[in-house]
Amino acid sequence: MRAVDIIIKKRNGEVLTKEEISFMINGYTKGDIEEYQMSAFAMAIYFKGMTDLETTYLTEAMLKTGDELDLSAIEGIKVDKHSTGGVGDKTSLVVGPIVASLGVKFAKMSGRGLGHTGGTLDKLESIPGFNIQISNEEFIKQVNEIGIAIVGQSANLALADKKLYSLRDVTGTIDSIPLIASSIMSKKLASGADVISLDVKVGSGAFMKNEEEATKLAKLMVQIGKNCGKNMTAILTNMDEPLGLAIGNSIEVIEAIETLKGNGPKDFKDLCYIFSAHLLIDAKIAKTEKEALKMVDDSIKSGKALDTFKKFIKAQGGNPLVADDYNLFKKSKYEFKIFAKNDGYVSKIDALSIGNASCLLGAGREKLTDSVDHSVGIILSKKVGDKVLKDDLIATIYSNKLDVKKEIDMINEAFVIENEAKELKLILKIVK
Amino acid sequence: MRAVDIIIKKRNGEVLTKEEISFMINGYTKGDIEEYQMSAFAMAIYFKGMTDLETTYLTEAMLKTGDELDLSAIEGIKVDKHSTGGVGDKTSLVVGPIVASLGVKFAKMSGRGLGHTGGTLDKLESIPGFNIQISNEEFIKQVNEIGIAIVGQSANLALADKKLYSLRDVTGTIDSIPLIASSIMSKKLASGADVISLDVKVGSGAFMKNEEEATKLAKLMVQIGKNCGKNMTAILTNMDEPLGLAIGNSIEVIEAIETLKGNGPKDFKDLCYIFSAHLLIDAKIAKTEKEALKMVDDSIKSGKALDTFKKFIKAQGGNPLVADDYNLFKKSKYEFKIFAKNDGYVSKIDALSIGNASCLLGAGREKLTDSVDHSVGIILSKKVGDKVLKDDLIATIYSNKLDVKKEIDMINEAFVIENEAKELKLILKIVK
Repeated sequence: MRAVDIIIKKRNGEVLTKEEISFMINGYTKGDIEEYQMSAFAMAIYFKGMTDLETTYLTEAMLKTGDELDLSAIEGIKVDKHSTGGVGDKTSLVVGPIVASLGVKFAKMSGRGLGHTGGTLDKLESIPGFNIQISNEEFIKQVNEIGIAIVGQSANLALADKKLYSLRDVTGTIDSIPLIASSIMSKKLASGADVISLDVKVGSGAFMKNEEEATKLAKLMVQIGKNCGKNMTAILTNMDEPLGLAIGNSIEVIEAIETLKGNGPKDFKDLCYIFSAHLLIDAKIAKTEKEALKMVDDSIKSGKALDTFKKFIKAQGGNPLVADDYNLFKKSKYEFKIFAKNDGYVSKIDALSIGNASCLLGAGREKLTDSVDHSVGIILSKKVGDKVLKDDLIATIYSNKLDVKKEIDMINEAFVIENEAKELKLILKIVK
Repeated sequence: MRAVDIIIKKRNGEVLTKEEISFMINGYTKGDIEEYQMSAFAMAIYFKGMTDLETTYLTEAMLKTGDELDLSAIEGIKVDKHSTGGVGDKTSLVVGPIVASLGVKFAKMSGRGLGHTGGTLDKLESIPGFNIQISNEEFIKQVNEIGIAIVGQSANLALADKKLYSLRDVTGTIDSIPLIASSIMSKKLASGADVISLDVKVGSGAFMKNEEEATKLAKLMVQIGKNCGKNMTAILTNMDEPLGLAIGNSIEVIEAIETLKGNGPKDFKDLCYIFSAHLLIDAKIAKTEKEALKMVDDSIKSGKALDTFKKFIKAQGGNPLVADDYNLFKKSKYEFKIFAKNDGYVSKIDALSIGNASCLLGAGREKLTDSVDHSVGIILSKKVGDKVLKDDLIATIYSNKLDVKKEIDMINEAFVIENEAKELKLILKIVK
């Protein structure tokens, strides 16, 4: 086999065999196939696509270039949840405790934020003492004991994906659905869960800008997971406006705790409920969505979910008292209030601009090596569909710097206030 | 400017600016832009193409990365001829002396053969003493004095093209018309002639397999040349069967000499006449094709063309007596005759197979570093359209090895003999 022949085969739109795909991925990981051949191959895939089966082979080949977590020592059904990334997305902090309180094993490896997109690890680290670096043995022990653990992703998962993603980033080959799907799924499969639930974000603050492309991606990832023997659900959710009201780190954790106490913003609460419900169904703990949603609601109302959250924080070295006293979080020095410029209805809150403004405040990072400020962020006071009067508070900036002119402009631009009321649909589609 | 943004722009089918194309080519040549970005860029061009103007910019950018020959010290109109490569193509050896004998300055840099395709330099080197390595000063002096010189291409022409071609070869991005056109034209433009005549071969023995693609390539190269102020002609010629009867090195030179003496095979003679005629027209020495063809015929019949050929050989250190005594060429040890297997008409002589058989005998090379055997080759006794009877001689192998079973099989397979007579059209199209 020669790499150039496989590149030409894909370039000509032919379907590659499992052996050909493995040859490319293994050769590339070992350095036998050059970066310049892989980038041409990726561009050929960008243009000619891959069948579901080819993408499964690609995913499996990448998966096998790294470690695979063996979660067999955990009793019960192990579940994992992944979001393609959005603004204000703290869902795992709520869904994890809910499902763990109902008997599911929530064993999650998570990532850090980049650009306008936040990351679960950064949010958790805003809790004093919280440790995301625990050994595999401790991870397994913790999940067995309290039903939930969220840790940093091992550097050794799907090594080919790490190398290939960096290459795609500089060669214009990021936006290819088979390449995105195999990148996400190779890492998810390596994490060893039985049930995988995917939140495919769609909209201005998401990687996928339109529903059609997002549906393709969701269907493909579900198919890959099924081909590999997993129980899969993908839910397409709207990311045209930020999720919930808080965008930052500690302020998002506080919003998650409020949601566990039954006081979450409606859109965020609905999302947590639907994800929790489908994890319960896929883990065979509930049969119908109605039954599952009732279990979720009971878990919140009884305080079981909040209790599990506290145990989870404590198990990973964090101070569980934060759940009762938000003053234990580090606070920002300054607050700036932003007011509506005219009467009307909020018709848009551009998630990308809000995410970028939050990043600029220091809540996010431009490069993976940057550090983040856990105390800063933005809290919205209005959401799409809300009626506003001129000079109503629409958002508050939490900052450790005094010059936030640029951030204020970005937030003002993100808010569109029009005469007619408009509603955003949060849950766009469920793909099983 | 960032390379990745330019790659994405082309990937999305947008038209690049002159500055963007220069940025890519200059950065790549200097090593600032990585091989893996260039290969992704080439694949994007493969799929999305380039406008004539973009391709002109690409050609000019590549041209400027190397030396440009200054032929201004040569009096009169300087012409160059280039073939996209075929089997049995010794046209320059005849066209050069013809047009030089008629006052045109034939200043040509040539290349070596590779694979099934022969190269003019290899053919010339079969003449005892012939030297293809002469200085620019000697080159200019010789063209001024006798009207013709053919030398090896400088290693410093269009450096970006050299680097890019090697990259395209291993990344499945050879077959792109803008990339082929800019590769050829950047070197031709660097050679400094005023008139450029292109032989675009079409058929089994050529790079371009169909007339439609070849027409696109021809039109594009003519347009690039015109955009750069050159007088251009491209002629599409058939390469389904070898050109002429001889395929090898010394035997092709002998066929060229015979053609200069007025005894050439019809197809080859016709090709030489048409190319010579159009060079005369483009160099403003003749006004019409009819007038030009008459001048060409006079040059042959008067012996002026042959005389110029001898002067040219002598000027470059070769023994001009070869034109009168073919025994001065090195001879092969063995001859093998191949006979027709049945009665009928020759309907095909697959040029690719004949070229590969000749290469296998040692007349060509697999890699550019291989040496060639000037004395071996194949002489056809029949051409497409000829009537044959079973056991008629169809071809003779000239070899320095005894085991030519594989070559015989290839030649037998190349010859298709059918019941109905068929004719090949040699000159398919003239693009000005």
